[in-house]
Amino acid sequence: MRRVRLGMVGGGQGAFIGGVHRIASRIDDRFELVAGALSSTPEKAAASAAELGIAPDRSYADFAEMAQAEAARADGIEAVSIVTPNHMHADPAIAFLQAGIHVICDKPLTTSMADAERIAAAVEASKAQFILTHNYTGYPLIRQARQMVADGDLGTIRVVQAEYAQDWLSRKEDDGNKQAAWRVDPSKTGGGGAIGDIGTHALNLATFVTGLAPEALMADLQAFAPGRQVDDNAHVLLRMTGGARGMLWASQVAVGNENALTLRVYGDKGGISWAQENPNLMTFTPFGEPKRLITRGGAGLGAGAGDWTRVPPGHPEGYLEGFATIYADAADLIQGKGDGALLPGIGAGLEGMWFIEACIESAAAGGTWIPR
Amino acid sequence: MRRVRLGMVGGGQGAFIGGVHRIASRIDDRFELVAGALSSTPEKAAASAAELGIAPDRSYADFAEMAQAEAARADGIEAVSIVTPNHMHADPAIAFLQAGIHVICDKPLTTSMADAERIAAAVEASKAQFILTHNYTGYPLIRQARQMVADGDLGTIRVVQAEYAQDWLSRKEDDGNKQAAWRVDPSKTGGGGAIGDIGTHALNLATFVTGLAPEALMADLQAFAPGRQVDDNAHVLLRMTGGARGMLWASQVAVGNENALTLRVYGDKGGISWAQENPNLMTFTPFGEPKRLITRGGAGLGAGAGDWTRVPPGHPEGYLEGFATIYADAADLIQGKGDGALLPGIGAGLEGMWFIEACIESAAAGGTWIPR
Amino acid sequence: MRRVRLGMVGGGQGAFIGGVHRIASRIDDRFELVAGALSSTPEKAAASAAELGIAPDRSYADFAEMAQAEAARADGIEAVSIVTPNHMHADPAIAFLQAGIHVICDKPLTTSMADAERIAAAVEASKAQFILTHNYTGYPLIRQARQMVADGDLGTIRVVQAEYAQDWLSRKEDDGNKQAAWRVDPSKTGGGGAIGDIGTHALNLATFVTGLAPEALMADLQAFAPGRQVDDNAHVLLRMTGGARGMLWASQVAVGNENALTLRVYGDKGGISWAQENPNLMTFTPFGEPKRLITRGGAGLGAGAGDWTRVPPGHPEGYLEGFATIYADAADLIQGKGDGALLPGIGAGLEGMWFIEACIESAAAGGTWIPR
Amino acid sequence: MRRVRLGMVGGGQGAFIGGVHRIASRIDDRFELVAGALSSTPEKAAASAAELGIAPDRSYADFAEMAQAEAARADGIEAVSIVTPNHMHADPAIAFLQAGIHVICDKPLTTSMADAERIAAAVEASKAQFILTHNYTGYPLIRQARQMVADGDLGTIRVVQAEYAQDWLSRKEDDGNKQAAWRVDPSKTGGGGAIGDIGTHALNLATFVTGLAPEALMADLQAFAPGRQVDDNAHVLLRMTGGARGMLWASQVAVGNENALTLRVYGDKGGISWAQENPNLMTFTPFGEPKRLITRGGAGLGAGAGDWTRVPPGHPEGYLEGFATIYADAADLIQGKGDGALLPGIGAGLEGMWFIEACIESAAAGGTWIPR
Repeated sequence: MRRVRLGMVGGGQGAFIGGVHRIASRIDDRFELVAGALSSTPEKAAASAAELGIAPDRSYADFAEMAQAEAARADGIEAVSIVTPNHMHADPAIAFLQAGIHVICDKPLTTSMADAERIAAAVEASKAQFILTHNYTGYPLIRQARQMVADGDLGTIRVVQAEYAQDWLSRKEDDGNKQAAWRVDPSKTGGGGAIGDIGTHALNLATFVTGLAPEALMADLQAFAPGRQVDDNAHVLLRMTGGARGMLWASQVAVGNENALTLRVYGDKGGISWAQENPNLMTFTPFGEPKRLITRGGAGLGAGAGDWTRVPPGHPEGYLEGFATIYADAADLIQGKGDGALLPGIGAGLEGMWFIEACIESAAAGGTWIPR
Repeated sequence: MRRVRLGMVGGGQGAFIGGVHRIASRIDDRFELVAGALSSTPEKAAASAAELGIAPDRSYADFAEMAQAEAARADGIEAVSIVTPNHMHADPAIAFLQAGIHVICDKPLTTSMADAERIAAAVEASKAQFILTHNYTGYPLIRQARQMVADGDLGTIRVVQAEYAQDWLSRKEDDGNKQAAWRVDPSKTGGGGAIGDIGTHALNLATFVTGLAPEALMADLQAFAPGRQVDDNAHVLLRMTGGARGMLWASQVAVGNENALTLRVYGDKGGISWAQENPNLMTFTPFGEPKRLITRGGAGLGAGAGDWTRVPPGHPEGYLEGFATIYADAADLIQGKGDGALLPGIGAGLEGMWFIEACIESAAAGGTWIPR
Repeated sequence: MRRVRLGMVGGGQGAFIGGVHRIASRIDDRFELVAGALSSTPEKAAASAAELGIAPDRSYADFAEMAQAEAARADGIEAVSIVTPNHMHADPAIAFLQAGIHVICDKPLTTSMADAERIAAAVEASKAQFILTHNYTGYPLIRQARQMVADGDLGTIRVVQAEYAQDWLSRKEDDGNKQAAWRVDPSKTGGGGAIGDIGTHALNLATFVTGLAPEALMADLQAFAPGRQVDDNAHVLLRMTGGARGMLWASQVAVGNENALTLRVYGDKGGISWAQENPNLMTFTPFGEPKRLITRGGAGLGAGAGDWTRVPPGHPEGYLEGFATIYADAADLIQGKGDGALLPGIGAGLEGMWFIEACIESAAAGGTWIPR
Repeated sequence: MRRVRLGMVGGGQGAFIGGVHRIASRIDDRFELVAGALSSTPEKAAASAAELGIAPDRSYADFAEMAQAEAARADGIEAVSIVTPNHMHADPAIAFLQAGIHVICDKPLTTSMADAERIAAAVEASKAQFILTHNYTGYPLIRQARQMVADGDLGTIRVVQAEYAQDWLSRKEDDGNKQAAWRVDPSKTGGGGAIGDIGTHALNLATFVTGLAPEALMADLQAFAPGRQVDDNAHVLLRMTGGARGMLWASQVAVGNENALTLRVYGDKGGISWAQENPNLMTFTPFGEPKRLITRGGAGLGAGAGDWTRVPPGHPEGYLEGFATIYADAADLIQGKGDGALLPGIGAGLEGMWFIEACIESAAAGGTWIPR
C-alpha cells in the first residue's frame, strides 16, 4: 500500500506532541515523513531533521518556504502535521491549505476567534482537507459510544458529565518546565489555561459522542496556583441541543489525577461511562438491567467490534493507538478510501474556540450564561 | 452498660427509613425501643408496635400524646427518632424538644425555611439535644477524611467535587411506588426533588469533610421524567469559604447509578476521593507521591484507625454500620460520655434548607448566583 | 415477633469473634442474649456478663453447669453460641446438644477429626439443630451465585479458583497479640494454621456455591515467618465431583491483603467472580456476551433480588450483615419458620476437618494426592 | 538514526502475530522491513510482500533461500523476525543464526526439547543475537517490578501467584478458526495447549520479575472442551529457588476472561500486584503501610520513571508499546547501544520448554512433582 508523503511543522528536539504525531503516523504504516520545518531555530531544525531521516534539502527554515517548495515538487508532501504551540497554528495551516496540501493540526485550533475564522476561511477556499487531532475521538470505545447513542441505545440524552482532571500544574511551574511555560502564558494561549488545553478535549468528547451541540454555558474559572495568569480550574455548566444538560470540569490542580479524562452520558433508556486512563473498558447500563462491561473489540459488540482496533480484546491499546486511528482515517480520507466522517475538523475547532472565549466571558462577568 | 430508652415517630409497617433507624440503634446495643407513634393509622400503629415488642400502652396514636405521656413517666423515653416524611418533621421535633426529650431526626430537616427556623428556635430553647441523621458522616473514612483536612494533610482546599447519582426515578414513578410518591410531590417536599432528598447529603458531606461553608451557589435544575413537578437532576456550582470552588451533581435519572454518592477534595498539598458504594476504601495522594489506598481501620492511619469501626480491616462495614455510628455517638452524647462534636445537628439542617431554597431560587431566575 | 433466648460460651472481654456474634444476633432483632459462660476466668466472666446486661444468676462459671441449669429453666435458653477457640468447641457443643439446646458454633468445627466425629455423633443423637457459622455464605451475592449455579446459568462447572489472603501474620507474632497467639500454637489448632483459620472458609465457599464436593487434594504448606510452627501459606489443588478442578490459596503472609477472600467459578456456559472486600458486587459473564456487574439486590436479579438483604442496592451491606443473615436463618429454623437449607451445619464442619487433615497429610508426604 | 534492516519469516496475510511484530518494530522507528519469506504459499508470500512494500526480489519462497541470499547482500538484513507457528521456529532460527543474522523469535521457543537444544547450540555457535519475544516483559511496570525486587523493596520473596486466563477456547473450535486450529493440534504444539501458548508467558513473567528459577513443579492438566487433545486448563504448583512457592494457573476456558495475565509477588517486606489488561497500574504495599498505586512513569518512581515509556503518565500505553520496547531494546543491542540485559533470550526459551514438558510429565503421572 502506498504511503502518504507527510511533512511536519514544529516538533523538533525536546518537543512532546510532535513525537506523538510521528509515532501515530507510523503505527499503521500509512505515512512516510519526508519534509519538515521542525524548529524556528535553524540548527535545531536541521539536527531534528537528520535524526528523523529527513533529507537535508527538505528540512526548511520556515513553514512558508516549506509550503511553497513542497507544493512545487512532483514528489512533494501530500499532508502536513502542524504541531507548533497553539498561537502558531493559524499561519502555517493557512499557508499549506492555500498550497493545496492537507493539514493535520494539533488542538486547540488556535488562540483567538479571529485566527480561527481565518483558518476556517482558508479551509472553505481550499480543496485540501483539514483535520484537527482531537485524538481522544480515536479511541475505539468512544466511537462505539457515539454509535450507541446514534442507534438510540441510550434513548433521548438528558445528562452529560465530562471531566478532564490533571495535577501537574498544582504548583507554580518551574522556570525550566518547557511544557508548562507556554501553557500558562496568556500571550501564547490567548487567555485560556485549562479550558483551552484540556477543557476543549472534554467538550469535544461530549459533543462527538452525543451528537449534541452546546447552546449556552456558564463558567467559574480560577487560577489557584500563586501568580498564575490563566485558569487552572474550570467549572462549566452546559445547556445543549435537545434539552440535555452538562457539567464540565477541567482542572490542572486536582492532586492525584494524571490525565483523568472521563465521560458519562445518561439518556432515558441507558447510561454509559468511560475513562481515558483505562480506555479499553466502558460501562453500559440499559435501564433496569445489570451494568455491562463493554471492552474494546470484545463480546457483544456485533459486526463492527474490531473496527479501529489492531489487537484482540484483552490486549490493551492506548493513547498512541487512538491517536494513530486519527492518522489512519486521515490517510483513508486523503487517498479516497474513506469519507472521514469520524474525523474532527474545522467545525470541532470553531466549537472549541467558542468554548474558550465563552468561558472567559462568563467568568469575567461573575458567572453568567453565555449563549452560543 | 445501660441502654438509652428510645421512642420512634413514624416507621410503621411498609416504611423504609424507620427500619434502618431501628437496626442502627441496635447494632451497638446502646438503645432499647420502648415507645412509638409509628403510624397515623391507629391499627397500623398498634400492629407495628406489637411486631417490634413495644408494650401496647406505649404505642400512641399521635406524637403529641406520646411526648406528653412519655415525659411524665419515670421510665419514659430519653430520646425519640423522628422518621416521618420530611414535611412532618417539624411538629414532632418541636413537641419532643419542648418535653425535654432528645431528638434524632431524619434528614433533610424539613420542607421550608419557616419550619426550619421554628425547629431551630425549639432547639435553642431546649436542654435536649438535636441530632440530624446525615448518616453518611458516620462512615469511618469520611471522619478520617475530615481529620486529614483538619490536620492540613491536603493543605488549603481548592476544589470540591460532590456527586450523588441514582437512577431509580428515571421513569415516571408508578402509582404503587410509595417511596417514590412522596419524593416527587412538591406539596410534601416543599418544592425540591433530588436537591432535597440526596443533594443535601452531598452538600453535607462536602462541608463536613472540608470544614468549609457555602458562600454562594448557582443551580440548573431539571425535571426530566415526563410530568414530574420537582427536579430530578441538579447541576450546582458552589463558592465556598476560603476561596474554594465546588461542583455538586445530584441526579435520580442517571441510568446505571444505584446510590453513587462520591466526594473528591483537592488542596494544594494533596487530594482524596471516596465513594459510598465501596465505603471501606479512600484514596489519598500527597502531591508528587503515589496515590495511597486508605482502608477503614487499615495500615498507616495511626492511633485512631480503629475508631468508629467494629471489625478489622478487610471485613467490610456498610451503610448500616455508618448509620449505627451516628446512633452510638448520640448515645454517648445523651449519657454524657461524649461531646457529640462529629454529630450533625441543627446547623447542618439549616445549611441544607438554605441549599434547597437557594437552588430553587437560582434555577427559577434562569441560573443566577445566590449568596448565602 | 418473639425473640429466641440465646446463651453464649466464650466471648468475654477482649475477645473478637464473640462480639461479632452478638452484633449479628442483634441486627435483625431475632435473639435476646440472656445467659453466658463468657470466660474461664470467673471475675472476667462476671464482669463481661454485667456489661452485656446478663443477669448475674445466668452468668455461669463453666459451660457444663450452664447447659444443665438452662435446660432446667422454663425460660432457659433455646440456643447457644459457642465462640471459644477452636480446640474448645467440642465439649460445650456436645453438652448443649445433649441438653436439647440448639448450637450455633464458630468455625472451624474443632481441631481433630476425633473431636469432629464426637460432635457429629451428638448432632445425630440430638433433636437440637447444629449450625456452623461459615458466615461468608450469608452474603447475598454468594447465595445468588449458588442459585445461579443450581439454575444452570454457568453450565457444567469446570474450574473453581478460591483464595483467602491476609497479611497480618507476615511477621512473627508479638507476644502481646492475643488473636495471633492461639492461631499459631499447634496445640490449640490441632496442627493447621492458615488452612484451618481461613482455608476452610475458602473451601466452604467453593463447595457452597458450586454444590460440588472435593474428591482429592494435594497441598504444599509453608511456615514462612521465622519460628512459626503452623502453616502460614497454603497452596492446594482440588479435584471435585463431576470432574471440576480447583485451586485454593490461603495465606496470612501476603503483604497488602487485608481479608481478600475471593471466589471465581467457571462453567461451560458462564463464569462468575466475587470478592469479599467489596461484597455487594459480583461479575457474571455468559459465554460470548459482555460481562455483567451484578449488585446485591440490584437490577436483573428477578423476584428474589431482595432476599437476605436489608437496604436497597447501592447502600452497601457488609461482613456483619452477612453474619446476621446466618443468625436470622437460624432463628427461622429454630422457630419453625424456615428449613435452614442454606445454613452450614455438621456436614460443612466435617468437610472442613477433612480438608485440614488432608492438607497436613499431603504436605507431610511432600505433596501427594490425598483422596477423600 | 540509522534503522536496522529487518526481515520476516511467516506473518503473511491472515496471520495475527506477524502484524503485531511489524507494528512493534515501527513504533520507535528503529527498523525497516526490507525482506521476507512471509508464507509457504508462494502467491501469498508475494502478495503479502507487495502489501508491505518489500521489493519483489527480496520476497523469498523459503527461509533457507532467504538466509543465504540476504547474508550475501551488502545491504542484507541485519535481523530477522520469526513469526511462524511454534513447530516451525527451530529450522529458520538455526538457519539465520548460522548466517550470522540476529534472530527475534516469537515464543514459545519451539515444540520439543530436542528442537530447543538444537536452537541453543546454534545460539552458542553464532555471533548473532537471539531474542525471544516474551513481550510482556516489555511493559514498563513489569520492569519496574523487577527492579523493585532486585532493590530489596519486597524483601525475601515468599509467594508468587501467576495467572493467565482467557476464554476464547471455551467451546470446541470452529473449523474456520485459524488462530485456534493450530493451537489445539498436538502435532503442531508438541503436546501442550494452554501451558505452552500462555502458561509459558506466566512463568516467564514470574521468573523475570522475581529473579527466581523453578526448581520443581507439579501440574494438573485438563482438556475440558469436548474432543480437545491438548490441555485448555492448567493448575501448576511451583517450588522456586530460595524457598519461594508459586501457583500458576493458565486457562483458555475461563469464561469472562479476555487476556487476564496477572502477577502477584509477596516478600517479607512488601507485596505487588499487576494485571496486563490495565498495565499502566501496579500496586505496591510495604508491610504495615497503605497500598500505593504505582503508575507507569508516575510519581514516586525516581529517576528511571520515564524509561521504557513514550508518553506521560495517565496517557495509557498498551500491548503494542510493550512489544515495541522489546524491539527497541533489540535495536540497541544490535547496534551496540545497549547490553540487552532485560531481553528474554535462549535461557528463557529453554526454561519455557522445560515447563511445558514437565507439566505434561507431571500430569501424565497423575500429578507428581517433577524436579528441574
